[in-house]
Amino acid sequence: MSAGPGKKPGLFISFEGIDGSGKSTQARLLQEHLQKAGHEPVLTREPGGSPGAEEIRALVLNGAVDRWSPETELLLFTAARRDHLERTIRPALAAGRIVICDRFADSTRMYQGLRGDGLRAQVDALHDLMIRQEPDLTLLIDMEAGAGLARAVQRGGEGRFEAFGADLQVAMRQGFLALADEFPSRFRVIDGARDIADVAVDVRAIVAERLA
Amino acid sequence: MSAGPGKKPGLFISFEGIDGSGKSTQARLLQEHLQKAGHEPVLTREPGGSPGAEEIRALVLNGAVDRWSPETELLLFTAARRDHLERTIRPALAAGRIVICDRFADSTRMYQGLRGDGLRAQVDALHDLMIRQEPDLTLLIDMEAGAGLARAVQRGGEGRFEAFGADLQVAMRQGFLALADEFPSRFRVIDGARDIADVAVDVRAIVAERLA
Repeated sequence: MSAGPGKKPGLFISFEGIDGSGKSTQARLLQEHLQKAGHEPVLTREPGGSPGAEEIRALVLNGAVDRWSPETELLLFTAARRDHLERTIRPALAAGRIVICDRFADSTRMYQGLRGDGLRAQVDALHDLMIRQEPDLTLLIDMEAGAGLARAVQRGGEGRFEAFGADLQVAMRQGFLALADEFPSRFRVIDGARDIADVAVDVRAIVAERLA
Repeated sequence: MSAGPGKKPGLFISFEGIDGSGKSTQARLLQEHLQKAGHEPVLTREPGGSPGAEEIRALVLNGAVDRWSPETELLLFTAARRDHLERTIRPALAAGRIVICDRFADSTRMYQGLRGDGLRAQVDALHDLMIRQEPDLTLLIDMEAGAGLARAVQRGGEGRFEAFGADLQVAMRQGFLALADEFPSRFRVIDGARDIADVAVDVRAIVAERLA
């Protein structure tokens, strides 16, 4: 949390989950709910979330899968995250606003960690060196990988991150659950294999608890 | 140096110097000289030097001076350097070739170090984490800052890095000389305030010594 003198502290909430889990929908629904409740939440996303970071996002996500090595891609995502933090997230938190972010550093930990080769250690070292910010609350919208993949395929994915196969979706789900175990104080795992409205009720309850 | 079994080792030479020092001209003249001598040198440059790194270069160098924070810019340059290393420099060294690079990590150390705020420590930590490669030989084309600036202005600079004032040019020169003191085993300082041909003679002599 971050607050100026006399201001109410901001709250930084991230949504994580495999493709098709419904996390982006839930992030949007939470924003609408908080707006109706009189807050001025900022809804943002990664990679991207600031003009510069969106340009870096386009550079990373377009083109062939092997266009960048895992290490170069990690550096580009870290550059985008730094810009996003400086230009969007920290100013909003400093103004006492609630920031809702669709993916944050946990997505990088999960994706790059799956690649192996000690990349997770590099992810952590880079994070400690250049980012040093965690969400106050991370909502993991969890579901069976098959269900998420079916939704993602039905919707038509955005880019190559959704072009991975079913085995990788299973590994991603396990990767997120492992992160929830690693950071229990800020993670909350929500069963995403239900009606959108039911999931949204859980999301609101957890956020209300944090705001109380 | 880097070599496969039975191959002659490659040699990684970088040129450094303030804007207008003539380092790019000297890099090109060295390439031509080595070609005539039967080598197949690779002439490259930073930021850039590979297709991906050139795209990152364009992203960093275009636009307003304050478009990126020093830290985001550092991450983008490090991403470009990683790509350049992987796609251009290391394959050439592994093939036993001489790589001539117009600017390398010392330019980052110098530029970001001048900004202060502990950025040099971040530069070093990022380098140790993601780059871990130094030139075998670094040729610093040194001259009075005023002379370099006059040349750069006459030529018409490429972008915002040459839009700095005379005071900064003086600080840059001192920054490069300090790096030559910091890394004496690979740095050679050459007086660049002479005719291009005379400077080129010195460059050739130093490189010939390394190749012998």
